[in-house]
Amino acid sequence: MLSNKQVVLRDYAEGAPKDSDMEVITNKSIGVNVPQGSNAVLVKNLYLSCDLYMGHLMHKTQGGLDVFTPYTPGSVIMGYGVAKVMDSGHPNFKKGDLVWGTTGWEEYSLITKPEDLFKIDHTDVPLSYYTGILGMPGMTAHYGFYEKCAPKEGEYVFVSAAAGAVGQLVGQFAKLMGCYVVGSAGSQEKIDLLKDKFGFDEAFNYKEEQDLDAALKRCFPEGIDIYFDNVGGKMLDAVLLNMRNHGRIAVCGMVSQYGLEQPEGVKNLMHLVFKRVRVEGFTVTDYYPSYSKFLESILPCIREGRIFYAEDVAEGLESGPSALAGLFRGRNIGKQVVVVAHD
Amino acid sequence: MLSNKQVVLRDYAEGAPKDSDMEVITNKSIGVNVPQGSNAVLVKNLYLSCDLYMGHLMHKTQGGLDVFTPYTPGSVIMGYGVAKVMDSGHPNFKKGDLVWGTTGWEEYSLITKPEDLFKIDHTDVPLSYYTGILGMPGMTAHYGFYEKCAPKEGEYVFVSAAAGAVGQLVGQFAKLMGCYVVGSAGSQEKIDLLKDKFGFDEAFNYKEEQDLDAALKRCFPEGIDIYFDNVGGKMLDAVLLNMRNHGRIAVCGMVSQYGLEQPEGVKNLMHLVFKRVRVEGFTVTDYYPSYSKFLESILPCIREGRIFYAEDVAEGLESGPSALAGLFRGRNIGKQVVVVAHD
Repeated sequence: MLSNKQVVLRDYAEGAPKDSDMEVITNKSIGVNVPQGSNAVLVKNLYLSCDLYMGHLMHKTQGGLDVFTPYTPGSVIMGYGVAKVMDSGHPNFKKGDLVWGTTGWEEYSLITKPEDLFKIDHTDVPLSYYTGILGMPGMTAHYGFYEKCAPKEGEYVFVSAAAGAVGQLVGQFAKLMGCYVVGSAGSQEKIDLLKDKFGFDEAFNYKEEQDLDAALKRCFPEGIDIYFDNVGGKMLDAVLLNMRNHGRIAVCGMVSQYGLEQPEGVKNLMHLVFKRVRVEGFTVTDYYPSYSKFLESILPCIREGRIFYAEDVAEGLESGPSALAGLFRGRNIGKQVVVVAHD
Repeated sequence: MLSNKQVVLRDYAEGAPKDSDMEVITNKSIGVNVPQGSNAVLVKNLYLSCDLYMGHLMHKTQGGLDVFTPYTPGSVIMGYGVAKVMDSGHPNFKKGDLVWGTTGWEEYSLITKPEDLFKIDHTDVPLSYYTGILGMPGMTAHYGFYEKCAPKEGEYVFVSAAAGAVGQLVGQFAKLMGCYVVGSAGSQEKIDLLKDKFGFDEAFNYKEEQDLDAALKRCFPEGIDIYFDNVGGKMLDAVLLNMRNHGRIAVCGMVSQYGLEQPEGVKNLMHLVFKRVRVEGFTVTDYYPSYSKFLESILPCIREGRIFYAEDVAEGLESGPSALAGLFRGRNIGKQVVVVAHD
């Protein structure tokens, strides 16, 4: 048996999740082999991904959404991660394989549906990237932008939460395509990053703007062709006033609404009609069968330095609660990762 | 000179337009010929169309929309109509031609942009149909449903304002395609019409429902694939809770919001993400270049009796203000038309 430190949900969160909604426990252990006859896989967790959807799972009810099965108090937090196979009862996996997919916030996990894991074949790039640019957020940015936004060279593109795991990639994809790109984020440090490192044409701190409509009109005097929406709420309402004819809005998430008792109302939907705008929600899991095609596109961008990728790395499983809670307060700069072990 | 009775805007409407916002005046006249050297067309107006977008034009400001140039108090109401050419300075039109397009609410109109008129070539169907099923509302229903909703046989289709000019056609198009179709409307008489004449599978009176979400769950236990939205607001919010994966919402209009000081907020947009739903606004004028293709599809449906079409006909220009105001109170059953002259 191996001692197995875990991050568990202490109790359901109220509003934005806090560090104290979770706790680190050290009294658990796990077998060193998969149970005989099982096709499960035992992994050592290396990198854990902090993602906004996890906030939904920390709430008992989700403001009328009720599409998620929340975590259970006392149980280990589940999320995306990179891991190394220690023992395998599944023919597709063997000891030493590197994988990414859903795992537990703990040192070791027994994964009972290993067929949902992705094998990692390319290790010339940092392994932690498989929690982000080479994993779920990377595919979200890629398919959300190229498929749902149907971008064309020269178009005006706006990205909210632009310094986050997904937003930073969407902005850079748009720049590579020859679009004019503006991002919003919540601190001067992030704004600097957007302009200096990610190559955004313009960026603004939404917390410093009295009037989001005015901020958008300043950045987009010609209007917006594409909005990649990570935040929903008031920003979406302001964007609707500034869309151009036949514009497209891809709705990836609505972080401004998570944890609210009731979502805010969006008032300017009539502009969808006036401007013939398309709004489309999407879920990255629909694109998982196309993972290898995605890798063919993104790996050369990383190797050739055409994409800059920012991570915010927290060391040690103990830092997990604070790293995850920080995500809902915009404390992270770039993709928030928790390192459990480096190999 | 011909004496030329007119319906003019008396003053801007507050809230839903009322009869008394308009008045009929009899002190105007118009020349019997187009001015020499002009390429205008002089028409005798036969049938006038009452359309919801005209409500926007009767308000000085449109609750932050500001995409319309409103009518001017004292000026003649403009709208779609069917007319007969009396005199023409334009090579494409000659005396006796029948046309439909934008005209004035008056006995005779001088049309200075006749190139925007559609010539009427088929007169084996009632001429008034060119204000509806064979005109702007017909094209709205046709392209909104077939292009924006991307329907497939067996899908679950919901239509609001289903007894109106557009809704009645959308529901019938969906039935012809083999969909399950439910409509909402605002009176028992309309509900009966939907079920007995238009062949809807189910219909409900939204004014009698305490809980729109519950009404939709009763009619669509399997959820909704397609929503053709004519009303916006609370109904749209309830629909969002009931969409199926990869559902489509075509936004044609939002009559529930017209004339409100501030539009109501729509809260359930996160369901676009969970269910991967597409929402698309559209404007029929984008499809005007395809008018002849539309006619090829719809004329046989009328001639062979595959589509039932309901009109609510008001006789005489004097009845115009009341007919138009009635539209905003749901008084009409079927397409509201005003007859100025039968030929």
